[in-house]
Amino acid sequence: MTHLVRIVLIDPSHPGNIGSVARAMKNMTLSDLVLVRPRNFPHTESIALAAGADDILAAARVVDSLAEAITDCAYIAGTTSRPRSYYWEFTTPRDIAERMVALPSDTRVALLFGSERYGLANEDLNYCNVLVRIPANPEYCSLNLGMSVQLLAYEYFMAREQPRSHIQLERPLATSVDIEFFYTHLQQVLTEIDFPDRTGHLMERVRRLFNRAQLDSNELNILRGVLSAVQGRRGQAR
Amino acid sequence: MTHLVRIVLIDPSHPGNIGSVARAMKNMTLSDLVLVRPRNFPHTESIALAAGADDILAAARVVDSLAEAITDCAYIAGTTSRPRSYYWEFTTPRDIAERMVALPSDTRVALLFGSERYGLANEDLNYCNVLVRIPANPEYCSLNLGMSVQLLAYEYFMAREQPRSHIQLERPLATSVDIEFFYTHLQQVLTEIDFPDRTGHLMERVRRLFNRAQLDSNELNILRGVLSAVQGRRGQAR
Repeated sequence: MTHLVRIVLIDPSHPGNIGSVARAMKNMTLSDLVLVRPRNFPHTESIALAAGADDILAAARVVDSLAEAITDCAYIAGTTSRPRSYYWEFTTPRDIAERMVALPSDTRVALLFGSERYGLANEDLNYCNVLVRIPANPEYCSLNLGMSVQLLAYEYFMAREQPRSHIQLERPLATSVDIEFFYTHLQQVLTEIDFPDRTGHLMERVRRLFNRAQLDSNELNILRGVLSAVQGRRGQAR
Repeated sequence: MTHLVRIVLIDPSHPGNIGSVARAMKNMTLSDLVLVRPRNFPHTESIALAAGADDILAAARVVDSLAEAITDCAYIAGTTSRPRSYYWEFTTPRDIAERMVALPSDTRVALLFGSERYGLANEDLNYCNVLVRIPANPEYCSLNLGMSVQLLAYEYFMAREQPRSHIQLERPLATSVDIEFFYTHLQQVLTEIDFPDRTGHLMERVRRLFNRAQLDSNELNILRGVLSAVQGRRGQAR
């Protein structure tokens, strides 16, 4: 069983789908499932549709927020089925699987799946390094939650069997919880220097930029050091 | 819609599964479905699970034998989940998809799926050119009919389209000359705030980080604005 790839379902509404997801995961040797605000869980329908993968359900963690679901994850991929107007990097399940395999081996990855009805919310996207779209019929794209998890888990299973390029980092990738401390710190400094947010999207843009870069822990320290230095000098200068 | 790939379900027993198969097919632009001796068809549960792919169900052909289902097909691939003792060629969904794409363009292909309970029968195998097995967890291989069709249809869709990652940017990527102005500016600010470069590799690391992110021109403006704001406030404070 692989424990470094976490499947995160955000606001799943149908218990049956949670069961199908567990089944899809286990078929591809994934076992780490986190549910953010499930409407009904645990539920007998989940167990029925898990078809023997109820160990995955029993071990699933239920949390109140996405941030909590991914604190220890260092690479976050969101899934989206609709062509969004966001300016983001979109990639395919195959490509993301190859990237996951290329990450340093102890990196914890989260694959995010939004609610059946609405998909991921804008605030969820703020945590993502990259977005994944499953290639499908442009005139009928109606993959359910279980199918979507199945396809991504399958691609990851396939990619692991044929290792390719790998990323060599000086330090492990920074985890989500530390990245959030950095964003909070940055927001503080921007306020202190009266940096104007004309569009109201400043932090969103800044997050997108740094998420794309996939900071390692050393780089994160440098950036936080710079922020502290800016604050320190300002303190002194007063 | 593609008509040259036929999905053949042999002895399907659950009407819901037939609906899921139709949905899986339509998602990947397949439309040619043939049912060999379905236990219950048509059925409202098929329509419910087809989730809008009921045109596929309406056009599905019902026949009494596999031979009848594939008279006009020239390449037949059977699917199997269990390791069989047969001496046959076994391949993967990805490989079969590539072979299908490589066939002369008017070749009609049939992908055969056996009953939920028993899979393909021995006499069905006699029609196959090749057998396909979906790679999965050796300790838990429990893909249902819909999932199996989904994975094969997806691989065929991918093989035809080979879509890859693309980056959707709000603005064009920043050009090198502007990036260099930014680095010079950043270096200036780091000096002004007396940020220590303990290893002598500070700028190298910072460049690597931002280069990875591939800044667009808007993001570059934000970053330069932040640098100016840091300088401006410091100027004022003095």
